[in-house]
Amino acid sequence: MTAKTLRVGLVQQACSNDRAVSIAASEAGVRDAAARGAKLVMLQELHTSLYFCQHESTDLFDLAEPIPGPSTEWLGRLAKELDIVLVGSLFERRAPGLYHNTAVVMDRDGTMVGKYRKMHIPDDPGYYEKFYFTPGDLGFTPIATSVGKLGLLVCWDQWYPEAARLMALAGADLLLYPTAIGNNPEDPEDERERQREAWVTIQRAHAVANGLPVLVANRIGHEPDPTGQTPGQRFWGTSFVAGPRGEFLARASTDQPEVLVVDIDLARSENVRRWWPFLRDRRIEAYGDLVKRFRD
Amino acid sequence: MTAKTLRVGLVQQACSNDRAVSIAASEAGVRDAAARGAKLVMLQELHTSLYFCQHESTDLFDLAEPIPGPSTEWLGRLAKELDIVLVGSLFERRAPGLYHNTAVVMDRDGTMVGKYRKMHIPDDPGYYEKFYFTPGDLGFTPIATSVGKLGLLVCWDQWYPEAARLMALAGADLLLYPTAIGNNPEDPEDERERQREAWVTIQRAHAVANGLPVLVANRIGHEPDPTGQTPGQRFWGTSFVAGPRGEFLARASTDQPEVLVVDIDLARSENVRRWWPFLRDRRIEAYGDLVKRFRD
Repeated sequence: MTAKTLRVGLVQQACSNDRAVSIAASEAGVRDAAARGAKLVMLQELHTSLYFCQHESTDLFDLAEPIPGPSTEWLGRLAKELDIVLVGSLFERRAPGLYHNTAVVMDRDGTMVGKYRKMHIPDDPGYYEKFYFTPGDLGFTPIATSVGKLGLLVCWDQWYPEAARLMALAGADLLLYPTAIGNNPEDPEDERERQREAWVTIQRAHAVANGLPVLVANRIGHEPDPTGQTPGQRFWGTSFVAGPRGEFLARASTDQPEVLVVDIDLARSENVRRWWPFLRDRRIEAYGDLVKRFRD
Repeated sequence: MTAKTLRVGLVQQACSNDRAVSIAASEAGVRDAAARGAKLVMLQELHTSLYFCQHESTDLFDLAEPIPGPSTEWLGRLAKELDIVLVGSLFERRAPGLYHNTAVVMDRDGTMVGKYRKMHIPDDPGYYEKFYFTPGDLGFTPIATSVGKLGLLVCWDQWYPEAARLMALAGADLLLYPTAIGNNPEDPEDERERQREAWVTIQRAHAVANGLPVLVANRIGHEPDPTGQTPGQRFWGTSFVAGPRGEFLARASTDQPEVLVVDIDLARSENVRRWWPFLRDRRIEAYGDLVKRFRD
């Protein structure tokens, strides 16, 4: 088959509690990626602010903004100027008292062609997201763009093979995961490494199971816990691009701002699927219990 | 939580077209594992013969045998003598013209406590399994034993997150994959490595997604294609045990007979699931389309 190359870019950055600083870092990364030829650029999760979910405070809902709103306007302007498809991740204020963790996609003409509201919402010490984010109600639907259908998911979704599969079954050409994940810097190093490795492994596995490239952008930097109760979170970076066999195409460091730019051959996905035709052999008549909480 | 240790053993071996030779190698491995204290021992897929699916021949159905039958009798005797739970993998003759790829579980008293008929059947050059094996009709049900509930699956099943998830939802304590996989020794080395790495990655990911240990036993050795049309298959070994975060607990070589024996802490699974409670957050009301062939 003829190669169908798409150059993609990922921006891995530290964030600030000064929105202008966070946005400037994102914009510099996007411009860098575009200058290096990327036609699809993805930012990390909640890139306009610190990861505010380390504690629960009603004041922090002030960070949320409407979609469309100031951030989508900025992202759209940037996409149009640079002639790229641009994926951002925002704290959405949908109505007073109703907020989502929402990823947005701007096409090359600057219009917003789709959004995805994070479906799986975590809640564990340091990640109090169930307080801030109403679970998404848009389902698992790829977003059609001029560079392909984007199977756009967000962070905690990355642990769910169901989400990746539903995107693949709906014809996604790529899986994308803007992410904000790190760990407690006082945990033992071997445990921190197990966590990071598990996170890399399961996302590479989504590529394998579905014969699709996977893009992951994660933040870096240590962000203190405003309550002082924990040592805060050290975000582990490690943004990466994997091909449809889960093979690494590009990988970032754990602690440096980086802009990854790499070519993906979208035609290779079908070639891999011809050799390993997993979609052919799914036993759909035996999968009914996947919609159960537990089989008891 | 108090540790609940289970010592497990995996037998990685070459096979022969002389059934007695294959069985002797398996038995030696099982005895070695039991002597080193393993209480659960697993053999690789179709361990009583060469991997006969490299070509299609009606004569080869002669290799099939009833269950219960000679091989389950042998396995049961061995399990009882060694006081272990023993997992074998057989070519089942269910009726004239009706055959399955079936894994069996013998408990410590030598009785067969369950069987699993391979649900996902591959068919690609060198792996003509759709000719030999009727797809399983027993579904995805863990097998209860004196050492825990075994989420027993077979080879091609390993590419399907759905299978692992259904076992986990039904209360499996472990995921087990007897396997026979290799590659064309004339393929480029980088491609062969990508395949092996994908296979390791997706099975580690089942551990991660479900917070369960995973056991994988694969054969070694080069087996020629009886038709001479291809260079045959070189089975890549690499049997391994992963913990509930996908971390390696033991790993075998790509080309040597080995008996892996390692301790698993079954209590750790719940601990891992408490920290990363993926089962809590599944969006089951949005998973309905998983039973579709494609969402078009």
